Amino acid sequence: MYKACIISTGTELMLGSTIDSNSLFLSQKLSALGLRVIARYTVGDNREQIRSAFKNGLEDADLVIASGGLGPTRDDLTKEAACEVAGCGMELVEEEVVRLKEFFARRKRDMPKENLKQAMFPPEAIILRNSIGTAPGMYLKKNAKVLVLLPGPPREMEAMYLNEAEPLFKQDFALDEQLTAGRTIKVIGPGESQVDEMLLDVVNNPRGCSLALLARDGEVHIKVTAEGENTQHSQQILEAITRRVEAVMGKYVFGYDEDTLAGVVGKLLSGSGKTLALAESCTGGLLAEMITEIPGSSGYFWGSVTSYSNESKVKLLGVKPETLDRYGAVSRQTAGEMARGILERSGADFSLAITGIAGPDGETRDKPVGLVYIAEADKKDRVIIKEMHFTGAREAIRNLAARTALDLLRREL
Amino acid sequence: MYKACIISTGTELMLGSTIDSNSLFLSQKLSALGLRVIARYTVGDNREQIRSAFKNGLEDADLVIASGGLGPTRDDLTKEAACEVAGCGMELVEEEVVRLKEFFARRKRDMPKENLKQAMFPPEAIILRNSIGTAPGMYLKKNAKVLVLLPGPPREMEAMYLNEAEPLFKQDFALDEQLTAGRTIKVIGPGESQVDEMLLDVVNNPRGCSLALLARDGEVHIKVTAEGENTQHSQQILEAITRRVEAVMGKYVFGYDEDTLAGVVGKLLSGSGKTLALAESCTGGLLAEMITEIPGSSGYFWGSVTSYSNESKVKLLGVKPETLDRYGAVSRQTAGEMARGILERSGADFSLAITGIAGPDGETRDKPVGLVYIAEADKKDRVIIKEMHFTGAREAIRNLAARTALDLLRREL
Repeated sequence: MYKACIISTGTELMLGSTIDSNSLFLSQKLSALGLRVIARYTVGDNREQIRSAFKNGLEDADLVIASGGLGPTRDDLTKEAACEVAGCGMELVEEEVVRLKEFFARRKRDMPKENLKQAMFPPEAIILRNSIGTAPGMYLKKNAKVLVLLPGPPREMEAMYLNEAEPLFKQDFALDEQLTAGRTIKVIGPGESQVDEMLLDVVNNPRGCSLALLARDGEVHIKVTAEGENTQHSQQILEAITRRVEAVMGKYVFGYDEDTLAGVVGKLLSGSGKTLALAESCTGGLLAEMITEIPGSSGYFWGSVTSYSNESKVKLLGVKPETLDRYGAVSRQTAGEMARGILERSGADFSLAITGIAGPDGETRDKPVGLVYIAEADKKDRVIIKEMHFTGAREAIRNLAARTALDLLRREL
Repeated sequence: MYKACIISTGTELMLGSTIDSNSLFLSQKLSALGLRVIARYTVGDNREQIRSAFKNGLEDADLVIASGGLGPTRDDLTKEAACEVAGCGMELVEEEVVRLKEFFARRKRDMPKENLKQAMFPPEAIILRNSIGTAPGMYLKKNAKVLVLLPGPPREMEAMYLNEAEPLFKQDFALDEQLTAGRTIKVIGPGESQVDEMLLDVVNNPRGCSLALLARDGEVHIKVTAEGENTQHSQQILEAITRRVEAVMGKYVFGYDEDTLAGVVGKLLSGSGKTLALAESCTGGLLAEMITEIPGSSGYFWGSVTSYSNESKVKLLGVKPETLDRYGAVSRQTAGEMARGILERSGADFSLAITGIAGPDGETRDKPVGLVYIAEADKKDRVIIKEMHFTGAREAIRNLAARTALDLLRREL
């Protein structure tokens, strides 16, 4: 199996305010091709650091692929550093000078002389076309190693990778087997630490397998990665560990990989020919948004009222003013009337209603931030109302409320 | 200025399906403390790769901080590799054995003997408490360098960093000046490549500054990073470049850093004492969700109807059945009636309505995916209707539609 090393350069990446999305993109693409990514280096615009990344990469990997630092400024050092490490001289490529001049001419500008360095390349390199910006990339094969330089802006990098670089890899590497296999098992209900505890015995006995937990908006995603001798073996390990996780997590498992909770609920609704309407208060449209994110949701989703004021609860949902006066907008009673109100007005088979205090303001003595009532009503006049106490920031509370409502309906269906 | 190097280990990170959020967190925290992060290494669970990351890190940086690989399995190699590179032997720490046994006893389990290696440490190390999981971390000061090991699960890592590691850095490093300053300038209207072109002259002349563009859901974020001789100098460079970007981008700039379009519109509404109501079709609650994400939005947001079916457009918004029959749900006429309908029912000062084809299905001969009508109505009986043709996937189209509607209102206000 071929080994790859990914390098990203750029001082702005070192501050942690930007996700290094280039590394992620390249990791995915190279793994999908069947290369094993052994390391990613992210370094600032510093010649020493960049050189040492290339040096390590070329020592350990068959393919070193870097993005960033191909621009015209003094901070753009990647090509110089890479060629130095690879032991290649550079010369001006006349064809590239012409291309650069045209790029600027089309934009009615003179080419700054700094840009000339973007036309310098080692004679043995293949120059990769940039369909968007000024910086060409390069592909260099030397001593059975491949060195690839791509521009930093993600759009330019992705286009150049897909159109120019990947076809060359496919020629130069005999790519066949994938030695790793992965799957995400998605769980709702227990928190991350509960899942962690439940899986303790599975985690401690992994046999060619690693498990990672990721808590996301009230869901816990269990990422399983298996590594075997060949494609089939990896798949076997993956299936075995998946069965073990499922056995432990039971009904909390709602889906896999790209599945979303709203998508799973949508499939259940359309499979049974049922329709849904919503009344949202504290989630403010979030639940409707999750549901309508799914293509085809218009087949089972009637619509929703986001009643963010008492007035809209009365006018659009028929909540009784007395109920609001007596119990407040955040109450078991209001939640129930919201669910019944939208069910009647819509004629849908099911309705969900959510009212609560998402914070940070709006807390009262009896009603703390995080108190949420979730109601589900159906045509048999059944109303289920759950009182929940969520913790976290506004966004987390809204997310937990919306997902808990979806999960309530999922279990019903 | 002290230099730091961040190492993340874990084979699952190399596949690109997981964001290495630990590296991001540590980059932010260390940068905020005034350390300069010079490199991040992300490596699989491979002893050679981990060793070489530590070796490079300890050569170039004053502080090397690693996360991951402190678990009990054979794949957990970080501590062994780090101690080897630092030239430290390890011995069993009885106190830690007791702690581990207690952890398992509380969970009614026997401690697997593999976990014993989590109690092995160099005698000169400070052991960092893990308040959540079994893996303790470590803090080692040797030859004027600091080496820190943290566990991989983000919750454990973050808690240990904040409670245990950061206080020790503050003792061991004389932290004072921040040499970099950054800001994100947020723009809506032009696309990424248009912004790129508009900024060409600014980008090509950066003087201690780097600009990066990030296209996000119809917005373009211009990240400016300045690096000077000291805090004040960095700030000066940052201000100068900010003014230049603003001069070029003009009214397209809607905010900075943590600002969101919905937040900016919310401030304008609450500043002028006006209220807003919505009628959404293809965006399915997304716009309501964006608006209510902002704490305090209940002060200016009346509520919203997500009319995902023709029936709900008629029943809840008063759209005329003839209009739907004659022009269709996705039409200038329907958008206008939706906006007027919700404005009347709510009594709000402004309303926004969105109807369109988000795809991938629902396209007709005359109405392609991406066709969206956005209407804004106000109490002076004025209705503005915009016909938009967006491109992209469902999610992108919904996002562009919601943001374009917000921007329409922003410019009105």
